[in-house]
Amino acid sequence: MNLNKLSTDGVVRFVREHIEKRDRLIELFGMKIENVEPGKADVVMTVTENQLNAASLCHGGAIFSLADVAFALACNSHGVMALALEASINYLRPAKKGEILKAMAREKNLGKKTGLYIVEVINEKGKKVAFFKATAYCLDEKFPSKDK
Amino acid sequence: MNLNKLSTDGVVRFVREHIEKRDRLIELFGMKIENVEPGKADVVMTVTENQLNAASLCHGGAIFSLADVAFALACNSHGVMALALEASINYLRPAKKGEILKAMAREKNLGKKTGLYIVEVINEKGKKVAFFKATAYCLDEKFPSKDK
Amino acid sequence: MNLNKLSTDGVVRFVREHIEKRDRLIELFGMKIENVEPGKADVVMTVTENQLNAASLCHGGAIFSLADVAFALACNSHGVMALALEASINYLRPAKKGEILKAMAREKNLGKKTGLYIVEVINEKGKKVAFFKATAYCLDEKFPSKDK
Amino acid sequence: MNLNKLSTDGVVRFVREHIEKRDRLIELFGMKIENVEPGKADVVMTVTENQLNAASLCHGGAIFSLADVAFALACNSHGVMALALEASINYLRPAKKGEILKAMAREKNLGKKTGLYIVEVINEKGKKVAFFKATAYCLDEKFPSKDK
Repeated sequence: MNLNKLSTDGVVRFVREHIEKRDRLIELFGMKIENVEPGKADVVMTVTENQLNAASLCHGGAIFSLADVAFALACNSHGVMALALEASINYLRPAKKGEILKAMAREKNLGKKTGLYIVEVINEKGKKVAFFKATAYCLDEKFPSKDK
Repeated sequence: MNLNKLSTDGVVRFVREHIEKRDRLIELFGMKIENVEPGKADVVMTVTENQLNAASLCHGGAIFSLADVAFALACNSHGVMALALEASINYLRPAKKGEILKAMAREKNLGKKTGLYIVEVINEKGKKVAFFKATAYCLDEKFPSKDK
Repeated sequence: MNLNKLSTDGVVRFVREHIEKRDRLIELFGMKIENVEPGKADVVMTVTENQLNAASLCHGGAIFSLADVAFALACNSHGVMALALEASINYLRPAKKGEILKAMAREKNLGKKTGLYIVEVINEKGKKVAFFKATAYCLDEKFPSKDK
Repeated sequence: MNLNKLSTDGVVRFVREHIEKRDRLIELFGMKIENVEPGKADVVMTVTENQLNAASLCHGGAIFSLADVAFALACNSHGVMALALEASINYLRPAKKGEILKAMAREKNLGKKTGLYIVEVINEKGKKVAFFKATAYCLDEKFPSKDK
């Protein structure tokens, strides 16, 4: 697959399908990719029994994973392999079983080798659940590097 | 259960068992709690198919979740309910399927209302995989608040 | 001074003047407060010789300080004493001597005890220089606590 | 100046003197470099009138700057130009006028292109004042790039 021959839309679709098929946390947590555009991605997840912590609230690790998947889609959406260097998350409101969380990743900056992304996580009422920020490091490889 | 009547060891054991039984990510990711002491916790996880991202490496969300569970054990180990306000993670080296990751949480500071914890994640060869840092906010409640 | 008797505008003005007069980094770095509203603040600083690091670029500490002052104005603007628990900054582009930096602080969330703020730092051409995020902890005191 | 011909000690001394002479925040805040070794640096600062915020406590920007200078010394100590990509700080205890703060930077990891550093800031009684963490990005240039 030569990404150079694809349109911008084609690259985005290729990256989305590649990640959708292979990222195991998408399946494990029942995430749904709602939208991907260059530098943008929205991913949705319903809080189920599987995501709960000992306080019966949505696990910080599950909220982080949701945001991380949206971030991965956004930072790879240009067709260049990118890896997370670091990420941080602020928890704003607990989420309970049954809540539908949406993570909205947006590119804040794209430099030569690194990019900055923020992801806002809200529930179905629009209440803010978490704020995530991450730095991507762009490799010198087309995405996905070893795909045939 | 009145935690006031328990010894320090008893409190730690009670908190560990409570979290071990109820935290669903421990089961989902196959984590094993190796050790808990006041302000400390070690948790282990083998990278399996379930934890992989689209690049066939251990998912950032899975590494974060491992560190987060160690952090939760450490910050609740004093028997007072604590919640994460924020956390950050630096990824230092990718982990592959089959690697055994260990997260070691240590209390750096404990104030009146908040505590600071760092968690180092290493693989079975002692190589550094990730560095995690988080702020806990201590509630005015004994742990676990609603347990009978 | 009883802040309860002031209008929202009055509280904002009082807080702004209090900080403007007493915060020594404002003077040391030649910052100018452009605007303060509830949950918002814009602060400007010209990069001079005094702010340079060893690479003759604006010092990370000076950029952080600029963002921190904007954050302090925004999180105290409601008339309740607030302190920083933690802050993080991503550097997006170096700033040189003579550049005019503007820090724009915005409240992302205000809970019972904590608030989340982001600050974007741009230069006079609108180019992004830094992205700052911080958690404020609200004390149970009117601002400023000991003022007469 | 050809750093390749210098011993490890010589490189460290060269970097230290270069930064000491040119970093303007060292002079502005009255910092003293106590020690630099490969991947390590200790820097001291007394809290004076100049460093105070509106609450008459040491300014978050001044504490960050102290930690940032220690970090810069540590991450440049190998003789390769390094820049900060991101940094975060947790404030653990306020510092008052007259307190002597010491920032101790330590390299946690050094990869091909990035390094991770933590800096602990304590006062003269050994009490923890702040915890700082930063990612350095190593340029493909000897330090300092344009020095003759």
